[in-house]
Amino acid sequence: MEERKISRAVIGRLPRYYRYLGDLMDAGVERISSNDLSKKMNVTASQIRQDLNNFGGFGQQGYGYNVKYLYTEIGKILGLDRSHNFIIIGAGNLGQALANYASFEKSGFLLKGIFDVNPRMEGVSIRGIPVRMMDDLKKFLQENRIEIAALTIPRSKAKEVAEMLVENGIKAIWNFAHTDLNLPKDVIVESVHLSDSLMQLSYNVSSQKAKKEK
Amino acid sequence: MEERKISRAVIGRLPRYYRYLGDLMDAGVERISSNDLSKKMNVTASQIRQDLNNFGGFGQQGYGYNVKYLYTEIGKILGLDRSHNFIIIGAGNLGQALANYASFEKSGFLLKGIFDVNPRMEGVSIRGIPVRMMDDLKKFLQENRIEIAALTIPRSKAKEVAEMLVENGIKAIWNFAHTDLNLPKDVIVESVHLSDSLMQLSYNVSSQKAKKEK
Repeated sequence: MEERKISRAVIGRLPRYYRYLGDLMDAGVERISSNDLSKKMNVTASQIRQDLNNFGGFGQQGYGYNVKYLYTEIGKILGLDRSHNFIIIGAGNLGQALANYASFEKSGFLLKGIFDVNPRMEGVSIRGIPVRMMDDLKKFLQENRIEIAALTIPRSKAKEVAEMLVENGIKAIWNFAHTDLNLPKDVIVESVHLSDSLMQLSYNVSSQKAKKEK
Repeated sequence: MEERKISRAVIGRLPRYYRYLGDLMDAGVERISSNDLSKKMNVTASQIRQDLNNFGGFGQQGYGYNVKYLYTEIGKILGLDRSHNFIIIGAGNLGQALANYASFEKSGFLLKGIFDVNPRMEGVSIRGIPVRMMDDLKKFLQENRIEIAALTIPRSKAKEVAEMLVENGIKAIWNFAHTDLNLPKDVIVESVHLSDSLMQLSYNVSSQKAKKEK
């Protein structure tokens, strides 16, 4: 594929395209026009055409997009055409929730280990994966090729654990701890800050209320 | 406060300001310059000044920002100066994880009920809140003032449940189901799509790998 600088905004929208195209595929749809896709996704058709043109476009004027082809190509761009080994640090409710998402595995994210500090969790299995103790993490990382670590631990421990992970070769962290991680530039951090999301919701609720009261 | 149109991007950054200012307060810091805040937050000082100017600015040239004042004012903008009653639909791992976040309560989000379809969950208490059956939801909504519903249920059920919530007066949905909800315009939906976030991570991992292989 031709190399181009793709904007963060476009990349941010790709998973959503991927999701809708997957649904269309499941529904047996083979082709879709940018207009029809636009109605489904609630974005303009011109936005869709622009976004997909970033990758050389996949459509033919008047024929619409080949759903399966587009799905596969976006999957490749997102790196879903190969598998990614990942571990979860923190076997609390959130860690267990992530471990139980079967859909991650379908997208190539293979859960290889779950770690916790709580001795009561030792040996408990989640989807066939035993929870291991944090003391075993370093050795585990040396013996297994792990790419991604999901951090579902309290913020007070996050910095220390993240640094230890990086020292042991982890290059990507999916961070659920409610803090930002300052790690070397070549480490990829994707944070999910649930409180921030809840505050956005609260802002929107409040500003809508203010509108109505006028 | 003077009314202005504040861009979505600025609003999106407010929770992060709020978090950093809260940490500074906890650390006993009373004043901070935009330069110092900029170093901590890893954004430019001019971005900080611009963002905070949207709200009339809170700083005095040369004196820096009053941390507590700024924290309180941003809290008001985010609607955190009053409480928000919320319920959780879906008492699986993710629902339980949300129910267990004590920090939500500190920000004024008061959990009033948890609902599930699984009879084995009936009466199980999470942080003192008993899990109720979905059959009781309608009545519960009629008898309680609930503002926000968190949806931690499978995507196959999300649409139907969301519509029922809206029919019964819910005006804001925090959606964790892996699907978009098409609801009336006055219903606020804030979605957390975990798979989308994981795919962003995977994209970044893949594009970094591609860079290194050159």
